[in-house]
Amino acid sequence: MGERWSFMILRASFNGVCHFEEFLEVLGIARNILSNRLSRLVEAGILKREHCADDRRRIEYRLTPKGMDLLPAMLALRQWGEKWAMNVPANPVLCDSRDGMPILPITIRAHDDRVLGGADLTWREWSDIEAGKPAPTTIRAAT
Amino acid sequence: MGERWSFMILRASFNGVCHFEEFLEVLGIARNILSNRLSRLVEAGILKREHCADDRRRIEYRLTPKGMDLLPAMLALRQWGEKWAMNVPANPVLCDSRDGMPILPITIRAHDDRVLGGADLTWREWSDIEAGKPAPTTIRAAT
Repeated sequence: MGERWSFMILRASFNGVCHFEEFLEVLGIARNILSNRLSRLVEAGILKREHCADDRRRIEYRLTPKGMDLLPAMLALRQWGEKWAMNVPANPVLCDSRDGMPILPITIRAHDDRVLGGADLTWREWSDIEAGKPAPTTIRAAT
Repeated sequence: MGERWSFMILRASFNGVCHFEEFLEVLGIARNILSNRLSRLVEAGILKREHCADDRRRIEYRLTPKGMDLLPAMLALRQWGEKWAMNVPANPVLCDSRDGMPILPITIRAHDDRVLGGADLTWREWSDIEAGKPAPTTIRAAT
């Protein structure tokens, strides 16, 4: 998933691209590389390969629920790239379809929805949480 | 960043690991690979290499602000792995240090903090947003 072409194919999928020729055109990718990456994404259960409802001769590649669930991770990486790298375009912008306003930066939330930063976080053993042990006060994930 | 050892080194960093020997012990990684990955992460500006305040003979590797900003993306990927893959341990759990309760799944938020799913999203050109154009009603990021 960290591989560059797979990332760009997934992003195109999120944009609604689903036909082989469309991926070729939008990504400017070599035909054999595209075939290879699409097969791998289908094998990984991230994309599904189906016949077009309108025209059974055409093949479509669409995101599965597993693939759709990658969106937050992909967006978080993209936002990090926009903030820290000079060559990552911030266009197009992902927006709320209700009013067209841009989404917020992806953040870490506490159970009560407060935004948490590095100093507000601590790692705990699942067994301690289940056993109802009080949270340790001295462990910090980062200073 | 998508590379496995770099990912695990970063996670150890978020856990507070900072000395070379500690990384070796916690990760079970070969010495030469660890050296290589640490150098690359320092070159990429994600980790910084400093002398220990207490003992100037010891070297520490700590997250830079750029590295810290990777945490949401790393967590989103980890949560995806826990949900969809059988072999990803869900332990330890990242928690709110205030009360020890686990963080929420990473989500996409609208400007008013509503959680958005695939069907609630649309891509827009930054120039259209700046020009104050009304949001198109027919474009969906995914069905």
